[in-house]
Amino acid sequence: MTYCVGLRLNSGLVFMSDTRTNAGVDNVSVFRKMFTWNQPGERVITMLTAGNLATTQSVVSLLDERAKIPAERKPSILEAPTMLQVAQLVGETLRETIHANAASGQNADSTFNATIILGGQIGTMQPRLFLIYPEGNFIESTADTPFFQIGETKYGRPILVRAYEPGMSFEDAVKLLLVSFDSTIKANLSVGLPLDLLVYENDTLKIGHEKRFGIDDPYYQQISTGWGEALKQAFHSLPDFSF
Amino acid sequence: MTYCVGLRLNSGLVFMSDTRTNAGVDNVSVFRKMFTWNQPGERVITMLTAGNLATTQSVVSLLDERAKIPAERKPSILEAPTMLQVAQLVGETLRETIHANAASGQNADSTFNATIILGGQIGTMQPRLFLIYPEGNFIESTADTPFFQIGETKYGRPILVRAYEPGMSFEDAVKLLLVSFDSTIKANLSVGLPLDLLVYENDTLKIGHEKRFGIDDPYYQQISTGWGEALKQAFHSLPDFSF
Repeated sequence: MTYCVGLRLNSGLVFMSDTRTNAGVDNVSVFRKMFTWNQPGERVITMLTAGNLATTQSVVSLLDERAKIPAERKPSILEAPTMLQVAQLVGETLRETIHANAASGQNADSTFNATIILGGQIGTMQPRLFLIYPEGNFIESTADTPFFQIGETKYGRPILVRAYEPGMSFEDAVKLLLVSFDSTIKANLSVGLPLDLLVYENDTLKIGHEKRFGIDDPYYQQISTGWGEALKQAFHSLPDFSF
Repeated sequence: MTYCVGLRLNSGLVFMSDTRTNAGVDNVSVFRKMFTWNQPGERVITMLTAGNLATTQSVVSLLDERAKIPAERKPSILEAPTMLQVAQLVGETLRETIHANAASGQNADSTFNATIILGGQIGTMQPRLFLIYPEGNFIESTADTPFFQIGETKYGRPILVRAYEPGMSFEDAVKLLLVSFDSTIKANLSVGLPLDLLVYENDTLKIGHEKRFGIDDPYYQQISTGWGEALKQAFHSLPDFSF
């Protein structure tokens, strides 16, 4: 499994992804699930992937190759004029990849499905955030639904629902994401450290802060141990029940 | 879906269950999922059910009928000498019911599976808490795993993991369960009010407190609105991140 979140704030986009992949519980590896394409001053595109690792790696490699080789460049996410067209391109590539595996006559215990969070900004247009389905279609975040989660989404959802605010600072958003990820990691073996973070500030058209939180990261440790205590205090601050 | 929790405390057992059943999102009903058999001074047995409603109702009806009709009483949960044998009886009844449906030649979109939390006390023996699987086998709670959840378990798990303590009072346990259920209800349409509560105090051999929390319950309202605020405060009490 996997856990990835893309948040849209008033001031930009924040992405976080875990790095654990597993085929069963006895075959566990570390793979990056966050990918960025950047032409400084022109566009920044970030993708988070969940699902079948062969599928997501293949999608990323195809997008990469088409962006790098001039002859192949016709449909390239570095040339598409809008984020909507980038999303269409990624969706098509995802659908084709899944279809190619499914149609090959091979069978597998699990499906070849994958889901992608895509966010970024091109030129002077608004930054946009999409959730792309295995079928290749997608939805876009709005003020009503300003964040997307993929993978093992349930444990970490309540704190996002309660504490997210569109006007929060990047620093607070990172804190919020770490709490959400820590709640998930504590409850589910299929999500694990290290965690990748990327912050994109509106209209900068360059990658903002990037960071990897490992198990030894002192701030992650503070959040992980502090949150248990803070939750207990929050719990005790509620009015007591009496029969 | 469903959400039910059985907690083992030092001083007794606490059970909570929601009441929403659904076949799709357009066919939603209210059904009680908490069932109790009680012979005051001799035994108290409580069951929480999740899964196919036809299966769980059938299991409860069979157990009920066998407990009431003397001639059928040979394998009765009111006569089994230990909680272990009660668990075996419930497990067998569950497995038979699922098997009878599965073998009937009918097909359904969803399976006939169900899962049961069973707790109670007989005579001077220890109170015990079991989780019974569709296959009819079961596990028992221990000091390491002092509570069981069934149904839509993920949203409400982090707070249980962090705030549960075996020495907590019944009142605090009710508060904890309401927070866990509220987090689930806020995030998932398939779990809904009203919530049923039952408290069993060790060695009383009678049903303790019983209560149904409806949407208008003032304490539930306090928890539901207060928890959002308390969570935000807990969140802000954590050390701030800086890049």
